[in-house]
Amino acid sequence: VTSPLRRRASSRDIRSESRLSVLHAVLRAKEASRAEIAQVSGLSLATVTTVVSEFMAEGLFAEGTRIVGRVGRPTLTVRLNPSRGYFVGVDMAETSLRVDVYDTALMPVGGHEIPWDDEAPSAIIDGIETLASTVLGEAGIDRTEVLGLGVCLPGLVQGTSTTSIVPAWDWHTRDLGMLRDRLGFPLVIENPLKAVATAELWFGRGADSSSFITVNLGTGVGAGIIVDHTMLRGATNSAGEWGHSLLMLDGRGCRCGRHGCVEAYIGAPGIWRTLREIDPSHALAPVDNQFDFMVGLAAAEPDAQDATVEETIARTGYYLGSALADLVAVINPEAIVLTGWTSWLLGERMLPVTHDTLQQQAPGRSADDLVLALSTVRGTAVTRGVALTALEHFLSTVGLLTTRTAIAL
Amino acid sequence: VTSPLRRRASSRDIRSESRLSVLHAVLRAKEASRAEIAQVSGLSLATVTTVVSEFMAEGLFAEGTRIVGRVGRPTLTVRLNPSRGYFVGVDMAETSLRVDVYDTALMPVGGHEIPWDDEAPSAIIDGIETLASTVLGEAGIDRTEVLGLGVCLPGLVQGTSTTSIVPAWDWHTRDLGMLRDRLGFPLVIENPLKAVATAELWFGRGADSSSFITVNLGTGVGAGIIVDHTMLRGATNSAGEWGHSLLMLDGRGCRCGRHGCVEAYIGAPGIWRTLREIDPSHALAPVDNQFDFMVGLAAAEPDAQDATVEETIARTGYYLGSALADLVAVINPEAIVLTGWTSWLLGERMLPVTHDTLQQQAPGRSADDLVLALSTVRGTAVTRGVALTALEHFLSTVGLLTTRTAIAL
Repeated sequence: VTSPLRRRASSRDIRSESRLSVLHAVLRAKEASRAEIAQVSGLSLATVTTVVSEFMAEGLFAEGTRIVGRVGRPTLTVRLNPSRGYFVGVDMAETSLRVDVYDTALMPVGGHEIPWDDEAPSAIIDGIETLASTVLGEAGIDRTEVLGLGVCLPGLVQGTSTTSIVPAWDWHTRDLGMLRDRLGFPLVIENPLKAVATAELWFGRGADSSSFITVNLGTGVGAGIIVDHTMLRGATNSAGEWGHSLLMLDGRGCRCGRHGCVEAYIGAPGIWRTLREIDPSHALAPVDNQFDFMVGLAAAEPDAQDATVEETIARTGYYLGSALADLVAVINPEAIVLTGWTSWLLGERMLPVTHDTLQQQAPGRSADDLVLALSTVRGTAVTRGVALTALEHFLSTVGLLTTRTAIAL
Repeated sequence: VTSPLRRRASSRDIRSESRLSVLHAVLRAKEASRAEIAQVSGLSLATVTTVVSEFMAEGLFAEGTRIVGRVGRPTLTVRLNPSRGYFVGVDMAETSLRVDVYDTALMPVGGHEIPWDDEAPSAIIDGIETLASTVLGEAGIDRTEVLGLGVCLPGLVQGTSTTSIVPAWDWHTRDLGMLRDRLGFPLVIENPLKAVATAELWFGRGADSSSFITVNLGTGVGAGIIVDHTMLRGATNSAGEWGHSLLMLDGRGCRCGRHGCVEAYIGAPGIWRTLREIDPSHALAPVDNQFDFMVGLAAAEPDAQDATVEETIARTGYYLGSALADLVAVINPEAIVLTGWTSWLLGERMLPVTHDTLQQQAPGRSADDLVLALSTVRGTAVTRGVALTALEHFLSTVGLLTTRTAIAL
């Protein structure tokens, strides 16, 4: 006789959630009293005191220097202990390889970026190992001090031993095992969209919004979706592939094989295509290096009266606003944060038309109070985010957290 | 001196979550032992025993009749106590008004549906009161036995006293107060998309999937999104307005004011428009009652070789599959469940092309294991779902749950 009931697919670990709240509060504040941690986390002072002791026992937390309280017995603050160890974050992107090293407080202590165009697993593993060794050597960090390594791979999805986990490169799970064995550090693998959203959750918009979307604009485009302080991963870890949702049914061909994707219009090559559609004889039309093209587009001053540039930016802002309105329709976030190099180069120029389009096209009053802004987390958000994931994984191996890391080995 | 820390926007009530898990298990199984409840909920037997006692003390649970265990001391099962009271569910739709009454176990004990075309608050309040009185009278239920009333209003969003909460009808919060005062029952207000998804969570797909999307196809179209057993509400309670995301930028005008919305293509009037675009002289082209049109479309047999009907259904299936691929791209659910009268009339006919289109257009391998199916929760899912929300609200008023009911008064 089988039970008519079925097991819930997931149950929560309450102690782990409490520890995550405390860690979040301390990472963000850099230094805080137990009472302050209790205040922001909503946990009892007793729970906070217990959790802080647990983190201190693992050497993650140290007594701080600030003294809190003007009456009664003064109490010391708590901070991350930066010398507990280091986390390496790797951004293996489509045209570059970047490695950054962070201390336990997620402050950067060194980093390097090199161009990259080889997608073979063995070459990438060599490249990561060489660059990581260089960065660690320059920072004077011994390999034994490294507590974890996080690697972002483009378009990562959940996989099994037989399926491809980086479809663009035909990487399989066994390749990750090779990477783990060669580097010799505990390894987590993450999708760059989710790494950026993780950095935004811990060090950016997450301070003010419990539910927000980080929209990455570059060669490819995509979203990291945070709902109630938690990453939306989806059934196969591919939630947030908004870049491959439709802007225009049967529209422009996208490199993913679909037609009419958002990315085909507002990914860097899509913006280039828009300019060429407007004026094939424009000076930027032959600039087929996408970064050079975008820098050229951004460099054209608004008062230079270059109608083609203005129209390209206006159309791109309209496409972006329309596509963001779809995210608002489906997810209805408190905020949308723009990140990625297209955002840094064109964001300020596009924002007015993007904002107006979004307001016009979002359903009803759903965007009345929506915050649309450029991210304040700049530069190395991908490596910082994946280093955070490596930190979470480290804490899970010492029994302090039960995380939902996508792939750890 | 202000703290550098900010309070988390929400914190969880653990006891409430445990009680919700137990209630969910018993509602679904109809009757279960404490050990079975512990097994499916992931809670300890001690916690289950405590929670069951709490529900029994409120008269919500009663001892069951089934005896479990063939060795040792036999144990009794637990079930909902249907005679504890009743919940009234109201589906105030755009063309009809439906009232159903449910017992505490959410089994229907009576119901009626009438056509409706008056959007004035006072007329609707009169209509609901009259129909509810009729249904309660026929079922022999005294008004004092009603524990709660749930009302679905089309397109409901979160509102303040000054903003419209039913934009299509210009309803304001004060109108809800009138409704509450006239009916005299504890009142919850819900969006029909979310009510249907609630019914699906408790009585349908929720048994097998922790994250799924209920897609409603009728005059309007929309989605109820369940992530990790929880309704995605969004910042203004309007998450799931997928019907007003883009299928085609600058495409067909939609009644919402935007152009190219999914609803403009696969809402019932959109399907009618597709047929008229294919063949303006077709026999169904002048049938401007959308329900009559759809029944006519569904009645045309596949072997009747009506090329216009076949093409209309094929295009609609293609539009639907494309739009569902966008939901998969952004949310990446385990399952998509189709509901609503267009689904009942055309679902079986559209499913093959919809399925193939979805598989082709969803990113990477994200839809490989996706379940796409018609809902098994038929008929009165809206009233059942909103009666469930009224039950949750009742449990919150007696201190057993802390729910996130959209609007309760």
